[in-house]
Amino acid sequence: VTPVGRRYDTVTFLSDLGTRDESAGVVRAVLRDLVPGVSVVDLTHELPAFDVRTASLALARAVAYLPECVILAAVDPSPGERPAVAIEVADGAGVFVGPDNGLMAPGVAMAGGAQRAVALTATDLHLGTPGSTFRARDVLAPIAAQLCEGVDLAELGEPVDPVLLVPGVVPLPRDEGDAIVAEVLWVDRFGNVQLNVGPEDLVRRWSLGPTSPVAIDVRTVAGDLLRRVATWVEGYHEVASGALGLVVDSSGMLALVANRGDASLEIGLAAGDQVVMTLVAESDAPEGVTTAVNLRRR
Amino acid sequence: VTPVGRRYDTVTFLSDLGTRDESAGVVRAVLRDLVPGVSVVDLTHELPAFDVRTASLALARAVAYLPECVILAAVDPSPGERPAVAIEVADGAGVFVGPDNGLMAPGVAMAGGAQRAVALTATDLHLGTPGSTFRARDVLAPIAAQLCEGVDLAELGEPVDPVLLVPGVVPLPRDEGDAIVAEVLWVDRFGNVQLNVGPEDLVRRWSLGPTSPVAIDVRTVAGDLLRRVATWVEGYHEVASGALGLVVDSSGMLALVANRGDASLEIGLAAGDQVVMTLVAESDAPEGVTTAVNLRRR
Amino acid sequence: VTPVGRRYDTVTFLSDLGTRDESAGVVRAVLRDLVPGVSVVDLTHELPAFDVRTASLALARAVAYLPECVILAAVDPSPGERPAVAIEVADGAGVFVGPDNGLMAPGVAMAGGAQRAVALTATDLHLGTPGSTFRARDVLAPIAAQLCEGVDLAELGEPVDPVLLVPGVVPLPRDEGDAIVAEVLWVDRFGNVQLNVGPEDLVRRWSLGPTSPVAIDVRTVAGDLLRRVATWVEGYHEVASGALGLVVDSSGMLALVANRGDASLEIGLAAGDQVVMTLVAESDAPEGVTTAVNLRRR
Repeated sequence: VTPVGRRYDTVTFLSDLGTRDESAGVVRAVLRDLVPGVSVVDLTHELPAFDVRTASLALARAVAYLPECVILAAVDPSPGERPAVAIEVADGAGVFVGPDNGLMAPGVAMAGGAQRAVALTATDLHLGTPGSTFRARDVLAPIAAQLCEGVDLAELGEPVDPVLLVPGVVPLPRDEGDAIVAEVLWVDRFGNVQLNVGPEDLVRRWSLGPTSPVAIDVRTVAGDLLRRVATWVEGYHEVASGALGLVVDSSGMLALVANRGDASLEIGLAAGDQVVMTLVAESDAPEGVTTAVNLRRR
Repeated sequence: VTPVGRRYDTVTFLSDLGTRDESAGVVRAVLRDLVPGVSVVDLTHELPAFDVRTASLALARAVAYLPECVILAAVDPSPGERPAVAIEVADGAGVFVGPDNGLMAPGVAMAGGAQRAVALTATDLHLGTPGSTFRARDVLAPIAAQLCEGVDLAELGEPVDPVLLVPGVVPLPRDEGDAIVAEVLWVDRFGNVQLNVGPEDLVRRWSLGPTSPVAIDVRTVAGDLLRRVATWVEGYHEVASGALGLVVDSSGMLALVANRGDASLEIGLAAGDQVVMTLVAESDAPEGVTTAVNLRRR
Repeated sequence: VTPVGRRYDTVTFLSDLGTRDESAGVVRAVLRDLVPGVSVVDLTHELPAFDVRTASLALARAVAYLPECVILAAVDPSPGERPAVAIEVADGAGVFVGPDNGLMAPGVAMAGGAQRAVALTATDLHLGTPGSTFRARDVLAPIAAQLCEGVDLAELGEPVDPVLLVPGVVPLPRDEGDAIVAEVLWVDRFGNVQLNVGPEDLVRRWSLGPTSPVAIDVRTVAGDLLRRVATWVEGYHEVASGALGLVVDSSGMLALVANRGDASLEIGLAAGDQVVMTLVAESDAPEGVTTAVNLRRR
C-alpha cells in the first residue's frame, strides 16, 4: 500500500455493538493505535442489533452534518457472507466503509451517490486476529485507518461496480384514493414519530400549509382503526395539551408530535408502522380541531 | 462576526438526546466540522427526557471539575418558546450555552454567577437547516463553535439582564420541630441517595459528627411511615451488611448508602422524595445502632 | 513529583459508573483539565455495578488492541478498604491504574504480567475534593494524568510486591469423565455465549475440527438438563436456522451462537453458568446434527 500523507482526520463511527461491553471501545482503540492523530466521532452504538434499516436511516439523517471523513458503519448480521466494501462519494470528500448489505446505501445517496467502490478483499491489510466474527475491529477499523493515511481505494481490494451494491430500502409514501399511505421511519427518544412524508407532499396533494388539520388513521395492534387529528404547527409549543401536532422535523420530514409528551406511546406507533393520512372535512380552525380530537378520543 | 483567534479548546456537552440514535453524535459532528481542533467532553446524554431539574443538578455537580470551556447544555422541552441564551461566568473562564429554562442556573451559580448574558437572536449565525426542533444542532453547536473561535458574546444577539434569566430550582432543607425535612437530589447508578443536606447541617442542628446515628423517616408509596437508622460513616465499607449509612459524598452532601448494595431500592427513594431526619434517642454507640435497625426492621 | 515530559498520549478508561449521569464525564473532564493534549478512549462505562469479574474479563479481552497508554479502570465496590494501585507492564508500554481487587489482574497477565506496582498512598497527588467515595475522579484520574506527564511510578506511593496484588478469577475448564465442564465467560449484546474453552481444547480432547458436532448440556433454572447439539462452524452464516453453532470468536475462544439470533436466550445461559460438553455419538454429518437438534427439542 502507498500512503500519500494524511487524507482524513476524522472517522465517524456508528454500529449496533452496544455500549454495555468493550466492543465499540476496542474499535476506537484500534483506530487510536493505527492513526493516533485522527478523531473518532461516535454517532451511536445502540442501534437495534442486526437492524440494517434503522441504522441506514440514522446514517442518512447524519450525512449532511459530517465533516470530510471516513464513515465506519458496522451493523452486520452476516459477516461471513459477502466481503465488506469501501465506497467513495463526493469526489473523495467522504468514504463509507462497512458491509454490503444496504446499510450505507441511503447515506451514500444523500452524499450524491457512489463514485467508486471496492470489495475489501486485500486481507493482508486486515488485522491478523482470532476469529472472523468481529469485522468492525479486524477489517473496517484498519481499512478506515489506511484511508485516513491516504491509501487509495484501489489498493484495498477488487473494484466493484457501484450499481451492483446492495441497495437500501427507503419506503416511499403512496397515494391511495383520497389518502396518503405513509410509513413511520423513526421514533426518536422523545416519542416523536417521523413519517416518510415531507411538507411538500401535503402541499402537492391538498395544498395544505401550517395550521392545517390532517386526519391520521392508525391500525392498532388489536386491528381496530384509531383516528386522530393532527394540526400542522411550527413547533412543539403550539400543540395543545393532549393534542397531536405535525411538525417539519430536523430532517425536513413531517413528524407526529405531542407537547412535552410521547406521541408514539399515545398513538401506539413504532418504526415501520403504516399511517394513513386524509384531509379533515370539518373546519380548519384550530378550535375545531381540538374539538374533533376530543370527540374521537371517546 | 469577528473571530479573534481560538479562545476555548473544549466544549463540554450534556443533553437528554439519548444515545440510541445519532442525535448527540450529529451535534458532535457539527462541532468537529466547524472547529476541528476543539475537543468535546461528553458529560452524559441520558438525562431523563425533558427533566430540567435533574439535568441542572448534574451540571452543577460537574462544574467544579471542568476546564476552561464552552458548556453546551441541551435539555429543552419547548425549543420554540423563548430564545436560547449564552451566559458568561468567571471573567470568561466559561460560557454556558443552552435554553433559558433554569437548566444552567445552578451550574452558573456554582461558577460564581452570570456576568453577561445574551439571547441568541442573531439567527444568521445559526445553521440553515430544516425544521426548528433540534436546537442543539442548529443553534447551540454553531454558537459554541463561534465562542471557541473568539467571537464575543455581544455579537450573538440581544443582551439580557442576568437577573431576568429563569432561575434554577434547588430545594433547601428546612427545620420542622425536632426534625430536618430533606429532599432527595439524586440517586446515582449504585443506588446512593444524595440528600439536600450537608454534614454542616447535622453539626449545626445537633452537633453530630461521624459515627452518629440519625433516624430517617420516609413516607412509602402506600402512605406508611418507614423508619430506619443510618449511621454517619467515613465510607461504604464501614456500613454493616444490611444497615444504612450516611456518607459525605463526592459533592460534599450527605448520602444514604448501603455497603455494595442499592440503598434507594431498599428504602424506596427516588429523586424529589422527602426524607425526615431526627436525632436517635437511644445510645449513640454503633452497637446500639445496629440493634435499633434490626428491631425497626420487623 | 518530577514530570519528565509527555510519556503517554492516551488514557483508556473503563468503569461501572454508568452513562445516565455525569460521573464518567467528570472523570473525562478532570483528565482534559490536567492533561489537555491526552486522548481518552472509553471502553465502556456500563459494566454491571460492582461486578469485578465481568469487568476484568472485558479489560482482558481489550488489552491486545490498546495503544501505549495508561489504563484507568474503575469498578470498585469498596473504595475505602485498600489503597488503589498502579501497575506497570511491558517495560512501560502500559500502566494500569485502579483498585487492588482483581479487576486489572487478567489484563495485566495478558500484557505479560506486572513488572512494578505501587500503592497510591501519596495523597498530596490526589484531588482535594469532598468525600472519599469517588476514587475514579479524585485519585485515579489525577494519577493517570501524572503518569501521562512522565512522573515515575515510584513517586506515586509505597512500592508493592506484584505477587501480593489481589489475583483475578478466571475459571478454567476441567475434564470430567467423558466431558469437558466449561463455564460461560461472557454474553455479548447479540447473545453470543463465550465459553472458557478454546478450539485447542476440543482438538486435544477429541481431535475435533470445524464441522464437528458437540453435545451441549445445560442445567436449566428448573433443574432439568437441556441437551442441544452445536456444530463447530466458521461463521454465523453457516449455522442453520434454529440450530446452534460453535465458532471461534473474536477473543479466540469458542462461543455458542445462532444465526441472526440470540443463543443465550434460546438456551438460557448467562455469564458464570456451567456448560457440559460431550462428543456426539451419532453421525458427524451436518444433516444428522440438524436431526438430533430437532429431536431433542421436543
